[in-house]
This record gives sequence, C-alpha cells and structure tokens, in this order.
Amino acid sequence: MTITITAFEQSPDRGRGLARDMRVRWALEEVGQPYDVRLVSFQEMREPAYRALHPFGQIPAYQEGDLALFESGAIIFHLAERHAGLLPNDANARARAITWMFAALNTVEPPIVSREAAILLEGDKPWQAERAPMLEKNVRVRLEDLSRRLGDADWLDGAFSAGDLMMVSVLRRPAGASFLPDYPNLAAYVARGEARPAYQRAFADQLAVFNAANKPGHSV
Amino acid sequence: MTITITAFEQSPDRGRGLARDMRVRWALEEVGQPYDVRLVSFQEMREPAYRALHPFGQIPAYQEGDLALFESGAIIFHLAERHAGLLPNDANARARAITWMFAALNTVEPPIVSREAAILLEGDKPWQAERAPMLEKNVRVRLEDLSRRLGDADWLDGAFSAGDLMMVSVLRRPAGASFLPDYPNLAAYVARGEARPAYQRAFADQLAVFNAANKPGHSV
Repeated sequence: MTITITAFEQSPDRGRGLARDMRVRWALEEVGQPYDVRLVSFQEMREPAYRALHPFGQIPAYQEGDLALFESGAIIFHLAERHAGLLPNDANARARAITWMFAALNTVEPPIVSREAAILLEGDKPWQAERAPMLEKNVRVRLEDLSRRLGDADWLDGAFSAGDLMMVSVLRRPAGASFLPDYPNLAAYVARGEARPAYQRAFADQLAVFNAANKPGHSV
Repeated sequence: MTITITAFEQSPDRGRGLARDMRVRWALEEVGQPYDVRLVSFQEMREPAYRALHPFGQIPAYQEGDLALFESGAIIFHLAERHAGLLPNDANARARAITWMFAALNTVEPPIVSREAAILLEGDKPWQAERAPMLEKNVRVRLEDLSRRLGDADWLDGAFSAGDLMMVSVLRRPAGASFLPDYPNLAAYVARGEARPAYQRAFADQLAVFNAANKPGHSV
C-alpha cells in the first residue's frame, strides 16, 4: 500500500529540515519504505478536508490505504512497529527505546519550543531580555541531564533506535542546538545521527522541495 | 513481577491528582494490575541513585523486575501493550489510539504547561498582563480543534483508550481546564473520564498519600 505524507509547500525553515516531516522522512528511509509527499499550503491546512486528516491542521499527516495518522511520534512508532530497523527485538530494550521517544517529545522538546517561540514572536518585546536567561536555563537543565545520561555512548540505549531518531531531531532545533557546543557528547550524538545515510537521503529530499518551490521564476 | 512506581512524598498539587503519577495509577487501575508506590523527596530526586532510574529526576519512574522506565507516556504504553483494556485489538484503531497519546503529550499539553508556568512563576512580573492573552490563545487554539474533532462522541476514537486517558489527564491541568466551560463537549469528556471507577480508585490512592503526609502532627 502506498504511503503518503503531507509536508509544507513553503516550509518556514527554508529547507533546513526542521519541519516535522523531516522526522518521518528519516524514519521511512531507515526502514526502507518508499513514500509519496503531498505538499500543502497554509490555506489548505486550515480547511475542513485537511482537518479531517489532521485535526490540529499541522504537517505531517500520514495515509496508508484506509489508515490516516498524524503526530510525527505516532507515525514513526507505527513504522517502527511494522518494519525492522527502528526498535530492538528484546522486549525490555524496546520499551526503553519507546521511553526515549516520549522523553524527546514531552520532556526535551517543550522547553526548546518555548525558547524558539519567544525568540521568533517576542524578540522585540521589552521583557525579552529579562525572560531570556530563564528560557535558556529551562533548555540547559534538560541538555545537562541528557548529556550526563548519554555519557560516552553512541546512542541512548544500545543500538540506534526510534528514540535516537526523535531525540536527534529535537536537538537539531536551533533554540536548543545553539547550546550544543557546551555539551560535546550531545553535539557528537547529533552529528552521528545526521551522518546516517537514511538521514542524508531524507534531508536531500526535503531540501529539494524547498529549492523547487523557490527557484528563480517559480511562482507559488 | 511486582510493579513499583515513584511519586512525590509531598506533591505540589496538594492531592488534586495533577502530578504525573496519577496518569500511571489510572492506567494501572484500568488494566487491573496491582502496584507499589515508593515516595520520593525532592532531595532524593536530585541524587545520582534516582537519576540512574530517571535521568531527568522526575516522577513517575517505573520498575518491574529488571525493567526500569520513565515518562508517563512510555509507562502507560508499556502497560497498554501487555494488558487488555487500554488499546483496541484492530491494528488501525490501535495506531489511532496511540496517535491520541502523542497528540495529548506533544500538541495539547505544551501550551497548557507554558500558561501554567507563566501563572506560577511569572505571575508578579510586569509583562504578565500583556503576555496572558497570547498564552490563553495558544491553549484555546488546541481546545477548539480538539472540541471540533470530538464532536458528540464519548471518546476520541471509538472505545475508551490510552489516548483518552492521556488526553483527559492533560485537560485536567488547571491552566487548560479553566477554559473548559467554553467547550461543553470537552468538559463532559473530562467528566466522563473522571467518572470511571479506575480513575476514582487512582485518585483516592494519590489523595491518601497527600493526606497521610499532611495530617496534624505528622512531620516529614
């Protein structure tokens, strides 16, 4: 059955692979599943037809036959359950890999998103200077704990898993990545993720979408 | 094998069932698994022994034989996979229920936590009045979308699932719950969750911990 995901027609990240379709593309490449991409405009994402697919009007949405999913975490977990390559076979190791998926999304990403939103949406506000150290500290607390747990290991728990895919994706967001030089093992961990052939293919594919939409003479 | 979870010795929620052990207790009651609770102090949560169990020093941590997990989402998913009662058998329905778990934790909860943190930690700051409408809008956008999707159904996708357990738990947080009167179907949805016998047992158990720690003459 053909897999189709949605992605931004015009990604605000300008091809840097920071939108959430990148995570799903990476997972699809890791498990070797071909997929189609349907590009959607911001206008289309607000319409009822799209909301039927994704109630919160975001990307990516996922379709496979009569199954429709949303939330990158859920989509990646779905792929990881059905195809080899993203979850270990041992039951306990599998449960721990899933734990890292949730940790990336519910513990590490929220303070990074908060700092990102403050920089993007409140950068010119008079309170930004006074709030900035708190926003930074909230991110650093998580990076510090994560760095300590990772230690000198390559991945968070044994072999590369969907937990690492999600954590690397979260750590790539600039509002957290700007601190990575202070946590060399995390910087190396992210670089290790980005060096994977599956990551490289996914990155190139999302960049090609951006470049095609922004080539000289192209009108959207 | 005995299941043990950790919970606050002195919960900052004062027994209102808002700490994340409540979600796991509820799930354990839904699947009918007995469990022990180990109460931990804030001091203990900072120590290396606890960090070995939970790298971010939070509650709940979960132990079952030689398996140690953290993140309420991961723990609940682990229980849901092993015991009947929290995930449907049909593969597609199961994937959709898992989608709602991730949606609760990564899409609906973060703006609620942001508003909660602003109220608790920045309530006396000069910028709070100007930021408050934005924080409120970020929550309402999600509630609006969720309300539209739920419609007049009892649960988000067919029968009650771990997705509903997580969503109801997230919606109970006061920084989101304060708006529920404007979304009557969501208010009824939360009430429906809270009326479940498993929820009631879990709530009573966490309240008993708080009451025992705070009875007259008790010293912590």
